[in-house]
Amino acid sequence: MKALQLKPWHIVQSEADFENNRVYESIMSLGNCHMGVRGNFEESFSGDGLKGTYLAGVYYPDSTKVGWWKNGYPEYYARIINSPDFIGIDLNADGIDIDMNIQAPLSFERTLDMREGSLERNVVLEYKSGKRLQIRTFRFLSMHEKECGCVVCEATPLDDDAVITASPFLSSNVHNEDSNWGDSFWKDISCHTGMSDGYICSMTRKSGFGNCVAMACSAYLAGEEIRPCDFSSLSQEQDPGKVSIPVSGLCPKGSTLRVVKFFCSLTNRDHSFETLESSALDKVHALRARGFESIYGIHRDAWASLWERCDIEIKGDEKLQSAARYCIFNMLQTYTGHDSRLNIGPKGFTGEKYGGGTYWDTEAFCFPFYLMSFGRASKALLKYRHKQLDKARGNARKLGLGGALYPMVTIDGDECHNEWEITFEEIHRNAAMAHAIYLYEKHTGDFEYIEKYGIDVLVETARFWASRASWSSFRSKYVILGVTGPNEYENNVNNNWYTNYMACWNMEYAAATLAIMKKRDTHRYDLALARLGMENGEVQTWLKICSEMYFPFWQEQGVFEQQDGYRDKVLEDASAIPKGELPISRSWSWDRILRSCFIKQADVLQAFYMMPENFSQETIKRNFEFYEPKTVHESSLSALVHSIVASRVCDFKKALSLFEHSVTLDLENRNADTADGLHITSMSGAYLCICLGFAGIRFENGNLSMNPTVPQGWDGYSFNMMFNESPMNISVSKDSVVINWDSYDTVSIGIFESVHEILPGENVIHLNTLQAV
Amino acid sequence: MKALQLKPWHIVQSEADFENNRVYESIMSLGNCHMGVRGNFEESFSGDGLKGTYLAGVYYPDSTKVGWWKNGYPEYYARIINSPDFIGIDLNADGIDIDMNIQAPLSFERTLDMREGSLERNVVLEYKSGKRLQIRTFRFLSMHEKECGCVVCEATPLDDDAVITASPFLSSNVHNEDSNWGDSFWKDISCHTGMSDGYICSMTRKSGFGNCVAMACSAYLAGEEIRPCDFSSLSQEQDPGKVSIPVSGLCPKGSTLRVVKFFCSLTNRDHSFETLESSALDKVHALRARGFESIYGIHRDAWASLWERCDIEIKGDEKLQSAARYCIFNMLQTYTGHDSRLNIGPKGFTGEKYGGGTYWDTEAFCFPFYLMSFGRASKALLKYRHKQLDKARGNARKLGLGGALYPMVTIDGDECHNEWEITFEEIHRNAAMAHAIYLYEKHTGDFEYIEKYGIDVLVETARFWASRASWSSFRSKYVILGVTGPNEYENNVNNNWYTNYMACWNMEYAAATLAIMKKRDTHRYDLALARLGMENGEVQTWLKICSEMYFPFWQEQGVFEQQDGYRDKVLEDASAIPKGELPISRSWSWDRILRSCFIKQADVLQAFYMMPENFSQETIKRNFEFYEPKTVHESSLSALVHSIVASRVCDFKKALSLFEHSVTLDLENRNADTADGLHITSMSGAYLCICLGFAGIRFENGNLSMNPTVPQGWDGYSFNMMFNESPMNISVSKDSVVINWDSYDTVSIGIFESVHEILPGENVIHLNTLQAV
Repeated sequence: MKALQLKPWHIVQSEADFENNRVYESIMSLGNCHMGVRGNFEESFSGDGLKGTYLAGVYYPDSTKVGWWKNGYPEYYARIINSPDFIGIDLNADGIDIDMNIQAPLSFERTLDMREGSLERNVVLEYKSGKRLQIRTFRFLSMHEKECGCVVCEATPLDDDAVITASPFLSSNVHNEDSNWGDSFWKDISCHTGMSDGYICSMTRKSGFGNCVAMACSAYLAGEEIRPCDFSSLSQEQDPGKVSIPVSGLCPKGSTLRVVKFFCSLTNRDHSFETLESSALDKVHALRARGFESIYGIHRDAWASLWERCDIEIKGDEKLQSAARYCIFNMLQTYTGHDSRLNIGPKGFTGEKYGGGTYWDTEAFCFPFYLMSFGRASKALLKYRHKQLDKARGNARKLGLGGALYPMVTIDGDECHNEWEITFEEIHRNAAMAHAIYLYEKHTGDFEYIEKYGIDVLVETARFWASRASWSSFRSKYVILGVTGPNEYENNVNNNWYTNYMACWNMEYAAATLAIMKKRDTHRYDLALARLGMENGEVQTWLKICSEMYFPFWQEQGVFEQQDGYRDKVLEDASAIPKGELPISRSWSWDRILRSCFIKQADVLQAFYMMPENFSQETIKRNFEFYEPKTVHESSLSALVHSIVASRVCDFKKALSLFEHSVTLDLENRNADTADGLHITSMSGAYLCICLGFAGIRFENGNLSMNPTVPQGWDGYSFNMMFNESPMNISVSKDSVVINWDSYDTVSIGIFESVHEILPGENVIHLNTLQAV
Repeated sequence: MKALQLKPWHIVQSEADFENNRVYESIMSLGNCHMGVRGNFEESFSGDGLKGTYLAGVYYPDSTKVGWWKNGYPEYYARIINSPDFIGIDLNADGIDIDMNIQAPLSFERTLDMREGSLERNVVLEYKSGKRLQIRTFRFLSMHEKECGCVVCEATPLDDDAVITASPFLSSNVHNEDSNWGDSFWKDISCHTGMSDGYICSMTRKSGFGNCVAMACSAYLAGEEIRPCDFSSLSQEQDPGKVSIPVSGLCPKGSTLRVVKFFCSLTNRDHSFETLESSALDKVHALRARGFESIYGIHRDAWASLWERCDIEIKGDEKLQSAARYCIFNMLQTYTGHDSRLNIGPKGFTGEKYGGGTYWDTEAFCFPFYLMSFGRASKALLKYRHKQLDKARGNARKLGLGGALYPMVTIDGDECHNEWEITFEEIHRNAAMAHAIYLYEKHTGDFEYIEKYGIDVLVETARFWASRASWSSFRSKYVILGVTGPNEYENNVNNNWYTNYMACWNMEYAAATLAIMKKRDTHRYDLALARLGMENGEVQTWLKICSEMYFPFWQEQGVFEQQDGYRDKVLEDASAIPKGELPISRSWSWDRILRSCFIKQADVLQAFYMMPENFSQETIKRNFEFYEPKTVHESSLSALVHSIVASRVCDFKKALSLFEHSVTLDLENRNADTADGLHITSMSGAYLCICLGFAGIRFENGNLSMNPTVPQGWDGYSFNMMFNESPMNISVSKDSVVINWDSYDTVSIGIFESVHEILPGENVIHLNTLQAV
């Protein structure tokens, strides 16, 4: 976006651009894993925008909307809802309401501080001829006290004395733009306005979630604190669903009215419904008593410790440094594994789209980042799915199948998606559940988790595949008919190679894991067999299906065929599509997209990202060179996979350009949809493209290796990862790899052809120049 | 339905069955091609039911409803709407409102008279302890004066004198149950209540249709006419949108209060908006002045003349005689070609489902019936599509394709359907447009229509196919990717054999027709080329595509393969599906249906119905024996095609059972959806299965032939058809064919191996016994 400056630790918006207000609102979102808020202005704004305040796990079972009902569609669509607003502070100067859409700013600067997790805005506007007002707002959502946050608002008349009124408010008068039927989701239970404090307690109409949002404010006029009793309190005439505590004062020219609004948003997910109001009020009083510096300091420390664990450095390219940090920043704002009831919505806390539900994005794209950054703590994500296993079993039953089918999108385990070609057919997602367990085990060695919990998911997903594959007498092979692969620009195809491959991988991995369990601990093995009602010959059936599975292969091209019939298409490179027709999702009718050869996101190539150890460099290269040029990357999840695979086949130029595509997707609004919210689940690419891609990190058979390169134009990069439960910082430059190993152990690492012994502390390994070709 | 008795000319409901009220309402529908009404009771009924009054061509652009928007979806869904109600007459006895849901009938009989097009109901109920009321209602919609109709209501207290009030009313307070967003479609413009007359004039909120529904009543108490001024008139307290003119009297025991309500429903499709009210009022006054007998007599005559043209007789099977007539009756109630702005909705005037739009059903299933019954008059149906050619061109453009693509469903030419797999992909419909022209030309010889109009449709549909086929380098063949064939239990398949076949047939027929035009009339040919902007080589391109088209063929089975990949399915007969799981559309999830081998309706076999002359008996037989057992007939359009094809391959037992399935579909509520309305467009099967099936009528190269058989259990049958613009009645019995040829010409007809000369008048041809095997 042209108004943005990307600095190493800051995203700076240097001018107002209200035409693209929604895009900037998305970009300037704040979150703390418990709640989040879009970059809406504190004061009223009559221009276009999407108000958004979201509470993790607070959803609404919106009635399903379909054009034509298909048997099996879910009755409801769970969506994370726009929740009562806590950031609002209205401003008025000399009786004039401040609204930047009316009083266009003379200057405007907004800074997202990624290091500290705060958002600051500095504006000067002329609210009346010759009378300028300077406004500064500053806010954060505490990364430590996750129900809490603070907004500071300062207003300074620059040209004359002025009566300034600041009205901190709470509002439950919020709605979702994308609700299916325009229903209102919240109803108010109670509200309170006291001396400089207030709350609104509301409840969702159907799902029974309770929320209490509360505030307590301090105010200062020219440095002098204003007494609480000098705040006005709510009159009955005010808007329903709004609690407001205006504070006014005659502000001498050049001096400031400062309001500090401490707020919290509590839900009955963490508190009993009965104590919501009192807890919330106690909490904001305590916050105010402790004061801004204390609250902010603890918040800042929490961010510092996250960055210590998760920062990536890119040396020599400030823009990509900024963009990559921005991605990590948003991953951390969205989820850090503190609550296994939660998961990662595609938009995090930055928008309504996709309803905030959980997709395979989590396991396939986010999980590796959390696993490598947080180690065993990533288990929370596995537990989330394990808890939903019973509903996944029911889901498979509904389709007439065995085992368990995890939903395409869910919040509490129920399938919520309603497009038949996705809901019922994009079943490769099931293998991603098993794959996350596989990665977890490989990286942490925590086999106990597998024995107690993971094996249930492995067996039930394997069973699903065994029932879903069918025997083709014609081919004398097992086939998997009627699926949609990761490339959603193909629907209802037969023998999607990726799906068939991952199905077999899943069954084989489940079988192998059972075999290990049997050897390791007969008791736990027997418990599992009993728990799962395993029958004689079941595993043999899986293995038979795997050994007789049909995998489409295109002999002439020497590549895996994306699905049956792909070879019948007119084959063209995506570069042949006229620029004006991109993205094709917006200019081509759906049938045209489907019968074209163009690929939305990695499909065959996805397997090389998921299971690189199973394919030769040559195989990967051949398929990459065939499929990559046909890929339009119209899913945010595409570029990162392609970048990693490009690195694997040493096409570093392409890897870099795809990395750039991936990390700047939202900052440059590449898919023209950042207005809807950020593409959170693809932001792990910032980490994965570096770690798995440029650094070429691999774990195979318990061995760590790397094949590092430094992309053209970079001086180097560094990142952290957990290895053997200890943090390791790896810093790659053009002629060395420096590994800081915070452990008591030593470890071997293969770098290119040689194996190096890594000791605790700093290890410097000099290498030949690594400049990417 | 168990309460029904099927008599040769009557459908009699012999008991009340309010649990299935909607089903009986559908079955007892009346229509006269201009308007129609479901079998709703005249008086208020608090039980379940679907009120329905429909006006041909009066639609509403309902906002599209989808779950997930796909590029190319239409903005609106045109639906024929529930229109102001004209049949209502409320009843009250001694202050008690009559409602059969409250006062359960002691006796109930309802008779649909198919010969005369009327509906009569006789009920006795106890409205108060020991006080019985006998009610008789009788109604018809004039088949001659299409805007008009009449309801008679008679109430007779059986046990005591009673004060009876009959309240004829009109109501615009109607809605569509299946409206996408619950919008109300009508708003009232004016209403009037006079001395025993009244009207309501309303307008649709968006599409600007105006309607005036009016009534004028006569009433008689114990045979004495009640003066108009003794009717009450509307008070302001009445329901909005309701005009009611109650008439009361003390009715001595055993004597009758009789109300005759003459009504009309006029629209601005046929009148100027300004004169609607006065025309309607004039019309009902004139009706009343002429009196019941006169109006009814003309109506009855109109039906008699329709039956003379269209009746089919089945001798020796009263039930099938009745059911077959019922089908023809409903075809004639829906459409007789009097207005080329109209077409045939899947439910006719009997329900809301499918929005009353035009589907390929018209061309593929209804057109042959109208063509053979009405000859050149069937041209109205061709003109309907010709008028919409420009919109069909726009529709193709929207999909990035050439030529014209007729919409899947439409009222005024705009595509209204919104399921991508149907809207964009069920493109075989385009060939049905060409096929209707082909049949028309073949049967009527009216080549002038082709030269002036038909050729445009042929060329544009051919162009569509040429642009839609793509070259497969892999196969060195043209392919048609991403389609849905007639069997909608497969979606987005490649190379649906039927589609590929009909695409080529369409292109070849267009090419051949151009060649004939060139020879016949150079001037008209040149005009057409200019009008269509034909380019050099265009026809050659079509023919090249046809000659290099890929047709999936399953060598081992010796059958056309329904589509690529069908052979990979698990092949089972439909008889293997547990009875409790039928219809699978209601018990299986969509993906399961899609990957099964089960066929919703004729797909490969459809080609043998469309173009029987192009396939050998042996080919048809092999494919029939393969595909028929896999067909679940869950489309109403399935059984008739299968019956005709079964006759062709001499499987008369199956042909008869499928004929029975087809003609009793609604009377026996076989698909459990008759409540939604009748399956009008499949009712032509009653005629086609006999004419094309059992009688084996064929036209080939201008020659008429037949291969008649008499199904087991029948004594014979007869039907009419137009041949060389003259009506021919063909009567088949076990040992003779009797042909009545109402013409000045003679004609040859091949019967089995021999050719017979048919003279004007009656021709009796004795044959060997024809009993079906």
